[in-house]
Amino acid sequence: MILVNSQRSDTVSALDRGLAYGDGVFRTLRTHAGQPLWWRDQYAKLAADAAALALACPDEAGLLAEVCQVAETGQGVVKIMLTRGAGARGYAPPAAQACTRILLSTPLPPHARPDAAVDVTARWCTLRLSRQPRLAGIKHLNRLENVLARSEWDDPEIFEGLLCDDGGAVIGGVMSNLFWVKEGELFTPDLSQCGVAGVARTRLLRAAMRRGIRTHVGRSLPDAILAADEVMICNSVIGVRRVARLDDVSWSPAGWTDTLKTALDDDVD
Amino acid sequence: MILVNSQRSDTVSALDRGLAYGDGVFRTLRTHAGQPLWWRDQYAKLAADAAALALACPDEAGLLAEVCQVAETGQGVVKIMLTRGAGARGYAPPAAQACTRILLSTPLPPHARPDAAVDVTARWCTLRLSRQPRLAGIKHLNRLENVLARSEWDDPEIFEGLLCDDGGAVIGGVMSNLFWVKEGELFTPDLSQCGVAGVARTRLLRAAMRRGIRTHVGRSLPDAILAADEVMICNSVIGVRRVARLDDVSWSPAGWTDTLKTALDDDVD
Repeated sequence: MILVNSQRSDTVSALDRGLAYGDGVFRTLRTHAGQPLWWRDQYAKLAADAAALALACPDEAGLLAEVCQVAETGQGVVKIMLTRGAGARGYAPPAAQACTRILLSTPLPPHARPDAAVDVTARWCTLRLSRQPRLAGIKHLNRLENVLARSEWDDPEIFEGLLCDDGGAVIGGVMSNLFWVKEGELFTPDLSQCGVAGVARTRLLRAAMRRGIRTHVGRSLPDAILAADEVMICNSVIGVRRVARLDDVSWSPAGWTDTLKTALDDDVD
Repeated sequence: MILVNSQRSDTVSALDRGLAYGDGVFRTLRTHAGQPLWWRDQYAKLAADAAALALACPDEAGLLAEVCQVAETGQGVVKIMLTRGAGARGYAPPAAQACTRILLSTPLPPHARPDAAVDVTARWCTLRLSRQPRLAGIKHLNRLENVLARSEWDDPEIFEGLLCDDGGAVIGGVMSNLFWVKEGELFTPDLSQCGVAGVARTRLLRAAMRRGIRTHVGRSLPDAILAADEVMICNSVIGVRRVARLDDVSWSPAGWTDTLKTALDDDVD
């Protein structure tokens, strides 16, 4: 089901600024029995991202009701897109803002089902992410870098591609955030220059800190990943997955993925 | 009038990858009496931009017929958007590509009419463009940087904002390319790291070279603009305009804008 500004519709205006300029933000979240998972975090992130682009964010209760309306009855995924609405030609944001709100539901993809393998294979992408602090961390609709990076492989055995920025620092996966453990401490890249700071990442950091696991958010080179004891990726749809193989390098389980998976699921909104 | 895949329609699929990811390219061109101006250059640029993103480009004759179909009878503007079409959720480009082709016409905006002032006022933007050589020069649908830069001012007296990259080099205007003349030679920024290499810029460089004007495409700092004898901006809709004032700096005409305006108009496809 698709809702566009509360109405059932499968189309948007050809003049929408989301299409013209990618002028908007989005969220992809899991649902179970018609309810969103991690809703408080998801809404907080949507509101923060909208604010960063000076977009009006719909009120929480009304949006939640719409998420529940479109959600599949079993397990599923709901995507929320919020754009600056239809506008005249030209980059200047219209004075009177009438945002477009699009909600669409899909069944849970096979790779996200509870019986999907926890271990995944990844590769390094050759594309380097550009650094734009004004857009870093935001899940906005300008995602051509992700599209280009994802088009670097079509081997279905490869689950994810890892990306560095143009300075060589590791940023994360094409569709996920990256974590690794070294000597009992948890590491994840700083995303103040590029990348998307996902809700699963926020929850994982919070859960790890609550459990007393020392965490580091900083700048790291690929060597740090290769030297890790365990490498993981996460997002709101797939949860936490262990990177068992990264190009020619492979790791045996060190137990951290299960620990963090439990921590993520235990975390309370 | 709006055509979507040759059909009159004012909507596109809510699943279009142009909306989801900005996965597409566009052109904005002038029309006169139902015919596009500079068509050969416009089509060549569209085809090159599409190829850079591995998008299938419509054939030239069919697209030209559609441009003429939507064009206003007098003077107008036609925008062509080309996206990777509707797709399932996920960054991976679909194996079978069915691009979406959107053409829409609007009347010529007041600032582009033949009687609009040649002299304009510009300002420096604070936003710094990120550098992504894989996307540089392409007129793609990821234009949030332009939107953010354009939202830095709402004074209607200011016609354009000038942008530097994150290394401090001048790149161009929010909606235009930048040229300047110093001691009889023509300068314009290198766009291999960011910016959009517009058709007016291509034609202006070609026309200047044909007239024996020495041209330089390179990396320059804002000081070079301030020290110029004449500063100009250009695009396919507004043609060439003289920057008479840039924040607190103003210039008297040195004659170059008229020369280049004539050269641009004289240039043959």
